[in-house]
Amino acid sequence: MPSISKKGQLMPQSPIRKLVPFAEKAYSEGKIVYHLNIGQPDIKTPQVALDAVKVHSLEILAYTRSEGSEDYRKKIATYYAKNDINVTHSDIIVTTGGSEALLFAFGSIMDVDDEVIIPEPFYANYNGFSTASGINIVPVISKIEDNFALPAIEEFEKLITPNTKAILICNPGNPTGYLYSKEEIKQLADLVKKHDLFLISDEVYREFTYDGEKHNSIMEGTGLEEHAIMIDSVSKRYSMCGARIGCLVSKNKEVIQTVLKFAQARLSPPTLAQIASEAALDTPQSYFDDVLEEYQERRDVLIRELKTIDGVKVGTPKGAFYCIVELPIKNSDTFAQWLLEDFEIDKETVMVAPAGGFYSTPGVGTNQIRIAYVLNQESLVRAVYLLKEALKVYKD
Amino acid sequence: MPSISKKGQLMPQSPIRKLVPFAEKAYSEGKIVYHLNIGQPDIKTPQVALDAVKVHSLEILAYTRSEGSEDYRKKIATYYAKNDINVTHSDIIVTTGGSEALLFAFGSIMDVDDEVIIPEPFYANYNGFSTASGINIVPVISKIEDNFALPAIEEFEKLITPNTKAILICNPGNPTGYLYSKEEIKQLADLVKKHDLFLISDEVYREFTYDGEKHNSIMEGTGLEEHAIMIDSVSKRYSMCGARIGCLVSKNKEVIQTVLKFAQARLSPPTLAQIASEAALDTPQSYFDDVLEEYQERRDVLIRELKTIDGVKVGTPKGAFYCIVELPIKNSDTFAQWLLEDFEIDKETVMVAPAGGFYSTPGVGTNQIRIAYVLNQESLVRAVYLLKEALKVYKD
Repeated sequence: MPSISKKGQLMPQSPIRKLVPFAEKAYSEGKIVYHLNIGQPDIKTPQVALDAVKVHSLEILAYTRSEGSEDYRKKIATYYAKNDINVTHSDIIVTTGGSEALLFAFGSIMDVDDEVIIPEPFYANYNGFSTASGINIVPVISKIEDNFALPAIEEFEKLITPNTKAILICNPGNPTGYLYSKEEIKQLADLVKKHDLFLISDEVYREFTYDGEKHNSIMEGTGLEEHAIMIDSVSKRYSMCGARIGCLVSKNKEVIQTVLKFAQARLSPPTLAQIASEAALDTPQSYFDDVLEEYQERRDVLIRELKTIDGVKVGTPKGAFYCIVELPIKNSDTFAQWLLEDFEIDKETVMVAPAGGFYSTPGVGTNQIRIAYVLNQESLVRAVYLLKEALKVYKD
Repeated sequence: MPSISKKGQLMPQSPIRKLVPFAEKAYSEGKIVYHLNIGQPDIKTPQVALDAVKVHSLEILAYTRSEGSEDYRKKIATYYAKNDINVTHSDIIVTTGGSEALLFAFGSIMDVDDEVIIPEPFYANYNGFSTASGINIVPVISKIEDNFALPAIEEFEKLITPNTKAILICNPGNPTGYLYSKEEIKQLADLVKKHDLFLISDEVYREFTYDGEKHNSIMEGTGLEEHAIMIDSVSKRYSMCGARIGCLVSKNKEVIQTVLKFAQARLSPPTLAQIASEAALDTPQSYFDDVLEEYQERRDVLIRELKTIDGVKVGTPKGAFYCIVELPIKNSDTFAQWLLEDFEIDKETVMVAPAGGFYSTPGVGTNQIRIAYVLNQESLVRAVYLLKEALKVYKD
């Protein structure tokens, strides 16, 4: 029997996936499971996007251009202009989700054994993309005590080697909810210019900022024309994760031309989803106002309730819809499984994402979980109550 | 300025893409260009697939399962059963086009510098996928004089090294139109069993076989349970290239579990396109009968007309909708560009794909072109007439 690759063996499983069989067992036992574990918003997709595919007049569902249709890219550029990001359609390659944009970025700027420095905890699938690309993630730790602010620049500099090609941030952060300040972005810009690195910024949660705070893009007045690669996606912005439409944006022509070659090999991004995504750009501002108000209230409810639990540590997320919570336990993998297998109140339990998978350093974050606040407020209150009661009886 | 990767520099450009600026110049000069270069069929997508997305009742365009929805995979398994391929839904991972299925296959079974043997000429994007995956293609030449039949098994055996992990075929072949016989598939099956290799078969043109000949899958009675990886796609079958839905099929559980990890990292295949693709499985047989009759007639017209040109060599394609044509010229890159830039009859010219990009061995195939017969018969006759007249005046 022929064997699979080392790369295939090394590919990590998502921290949530390991729990799915236990969740399924819980369902089969008639339990209601409150899902604090997933990043699939319950917010409705804008009607204008859903309707656009209903009235399509296609006779042949044909390829689009590999870089995405010109009309769509022009409309994306207009959207960016409204967000003080000054790019043209030729700086944009439409991708199959933010995932593909990241894979194309990794492939275009890094070879085998090259390194990308990422503040941890970070989006767990960065591990998968780096393994698939044959490159290495070098983590720089950010701390719950600092609300996961940018680590000191000296900490980055200590990690830079001849193999370092890029720094990657997620802003606002999944799983931290941290929103980088203008000053932090400037520090990173200076750093990548000094060491001639790329700065990749995953900005798929751009709109999700709270307390009146403003998002700061790496493409906005940083003078990073040759260094900045922005990753974006319609998934969270319009609650259309299933579209699988994202984009990669850079003013660096060599990067764009290289990414285009990767894009051409896979022919084109999905056509129907581009129709929906282009229409989504006409979503009225009131949609975002409502969504933002809802998420800010959910965050407030979640943090308020979590703070009533003894021994729990949690920051104040300023963006996205996640937070990292430190629990008075030793191992959140075991705890998350126990919640599904052995715990219930009135046939109800809760599913959380163990945070270990969001770290690259072994053994760090093992007493933490990630919570996604994509449930309504009533469910959030109930879910945190279940968590609180569970911690009273759990022993590890 | 930070530099792009070696991998990015090595990524090949598609053989057609280089010509696009010249085609655009021809349009701007008011020329009509007959496109013999592209694999985008002019056949209409089945109405049942186009309609399915028009009546969707989604409120949230959410992720599907990473491996594709269970309903869709069960229906795919039923389709395979009708084609004498005995698999279940758990042997199937739905992918974003056949492209992603190939990338997942390469990643799951090969590490950097591993080798896959492919009969050349082969689908040009295999070069891009191998570069992106950091692996090497080892070509084994198939000849126009033999109608591009499977090279002798000894030729494969000469090329097998400790780094060889797989053999990849495309059946029926793009760009050759060759349909492998049952005997040839058996020879390959014996070979991979003997040397403990994987056999990857790109079967996206399964339905497109002519002269009453039957397609032979590597999954069909070959006893290759642990060795066979089948690549498939809805793109050509239902003329829905823009859906970007394909799948990877294997009875090897370790392969499927590994591919699933790659699939999970990128979250899910596109949801709307899965709706269309699931509906497409209800396409009535009459659709395929009509399409096949049309393609067979197109092939007959094309080959008949091509044979009237002095010094032209062409095989008899038995499947897909491509053929390789050898021309009495030295360099088909230069010729294809000249056709667009400097040739016209009554403001009309023709665009062809130089065949060099379909070979991995440098210098081979440079006097060949690939023709896709995805035009109606009248246009095909006119396009070949233009080619014939062009060859009378062209000097290289």
